[in-house]
Amino acid sequence: MAAKIISGTEIAAQIREELKKEVSEMKDKSGIIPGLVTILVGKNPASVSYVTAKQKTAHELGFYSIQDDQPEDISETDLLNLIDKYNKDPKIHGILVQLPLPRHIDEKKVLNSIDPDKDVDAFHPVNLGRLMIGGDEVKFLPCTPAGIQELIVRSGFETSGAEVVVVGRSNIVGKPIANMLLQKGKGANATVTVVHTGTKDIASHCKRADILIVAAGVPGLVKPEWIKPGACVIDVGVNRVGEKISEKTGKPVPILKGDVDFDAAKEIAGAITPVPGGVGPMTITMLMKNTVKSAKLHAGIK
Amino acid sequence: MAAKIISGTEIAAQIREELKKEVSEMKDKSGIIPGLVTILVGKNPASVSYVTAKQKTAHELGFYSIQDDQPEDISETDLLNLIDKYNKDPKIHGILVQLPLPRHIDEKKVLNSIDPDKDVDAFHPVNLGRLMIGGDEVKFLPCTPAGIQELIVRSGFETSGAEVVVVGRSNIVGKPIANMLLQKGKGANATVTVVHTGTKDIASHCKRADILIVAAGVPGLVKPEWIKPGACVIDVGVNRVGEKISEKTGKPVPILKGDVDFDAAKEIAGAITPVPGGVGPMTITMLMKNTVKSAKLHAGIK
Repeated sequence: MAAKIISGTEIAAQIREELKKEVSEMKDKSGIIPGLVTILVGKNPASVSYVTAKQKTAHELGFYSIQDDQPEDISETDLLNLIDKYNKDPKIHGILVQLPLPRHIDEKKVLNSIDPDKDVDAFHPVNLGRLMIGGDEVKFLPCTPAGIQELIVRSGFETSGAEVVVVGRSNIVGKPIANMLLQKGKGANATVTVVHTGTKDIASHCKRADILIVAAGVPGLVKPEWIKPGACVIDVGVNRVGEKISEKTGKPVPILKGDVDFDAAKEIAGAITPVPGGVGPMTITMLMKNTVKSAKLHAGIK
Repeated sequence: MAAKIISGTEIAAQIREELKKEVSEMKDKSGIIPGLVTILVGKNPASVSYVTAKQKTAHELGFYSIQDDQPEDISETDLLNLIDKYNKDPKIHGILVQLPLPRHIDEKKVLNSIDPDKDVDAFHPVNLGRLMIGGDEVKFLPCTPAGIQELIVRSGFETSGAEVVVVGRSNIVGKPIANMLLQKGKGANATVTVVHTGTKDIASHCKRADILIVAAGVPGLVKPEWIKPGACVIDVGVNRVGEKISEKTGKPVPILKGDVDFDAAKEIAGAITPVPGGVGPMTITMLMKNTVKSAKLHAGIK
């Protein structure tokens, strides 16, 4: 039987509708409007397109949003001062600095200068520490792991008591999602194993996973025989494996492939995310969710 | 064959000797003396005895150390001001507030007011976040997990590629040790599974562990048949299961039992920590190690 396809595109659209309603109600009741600033240094085309997509979504949801473009040669001090300005700006609840930054700027220093309570990307050590502690301590969850958790829960998979195997130990995906799913509470309480390049037999671990999360960055790494029949498979990999001519535009576009052999895996899994259209569309949406939460926390709304 | 007994008492003594030498050399070379303040609120007898032991060790290692006793009814504001004073004191590199605090004081607020760079207990979210990120980001490791890692490494067990199972997901032991052992690098790079009260079949996970770390707080939870022959077993449990009359003093003393059925387990494991005398003696020693590291970091010594 073919697996259910978990559409990140559809689930993200659903969450955005919920957020839009929440933003509108919040505005009516308390006059609070979530404020997001995206800071872009230079004109890297990929970065421009990411930032544009974030601004577009923020605008659609009714946010107060600022796109702050800075020249490629901005000094580190000036960038830190700019962040400090937004840290102090009561209309701004979320600050996002688009990466990568030019080489002359210390990326870590810049990210760590964002007020943790406005760090809607949740890359700051304080927010990762809060994530590890869990419970009420958590303010923001990093966007991709938060999106993964939503995909699992909204597809109707029970995480409590489930065997979860996470392939990959990146700071952006593997480590945070593992820490999130092993916590007590809803959408979590799973038994979690993290496997990685140092693991002797990755396949044997994958085979016992009720929920398999793959964020290794290796196209087609996970073979169909590694998948437990009926498992929920979340493929975080976005690997460019070539180019093709778009039927729509006639222009070359990258061919994307996940970390899972999708065509074969979907005959065994119970549910699986496609690439593209799975985890990808969730990330920006979770950034918006964090910004709404930040606005509420700053205003003392529960 | 009976397991090798991993003596925390001996390994801790060995590390303290190394630290003593390091402190003495640091003093000679650069005039820096590690400074530790232990703050005790009230006169809880257990707390008094813990703080006394910490001060005694600090003194033996040649630290500059202050025991700061405060009355039970100190206000939260006064306690926060006291911490602020030590945050600013260049002679102090480590600040320890002995827990528990009286009910009228917000424990979390107090702990989070310690400068993360003097937080030698490493309970602050910033230090837990740094721990999750790993690598050069890490400043201090929480003392009990750090002690566990030393016990494993100094007993000659290879963590790289090993199957590690952690029983328990506390913020003090289970979560941090799991995060530490799955990192890249020496004394880590293990495949890590965290099991807990929400896990369906704890035994089956324990059975595949090359290194089994048990921090559940349930006396005798781990049965001998759960242990893989030759495994390294670290028992973090310290459970009071009764009282006996001390032969030395003639006074009643608690009978302590670990989370592992020690007598039976030692016939199957390759190495095992006793309770008491295993993980326990390591904790204070790792606090001292963190304080020495803090002194070096503050002085810019590598």
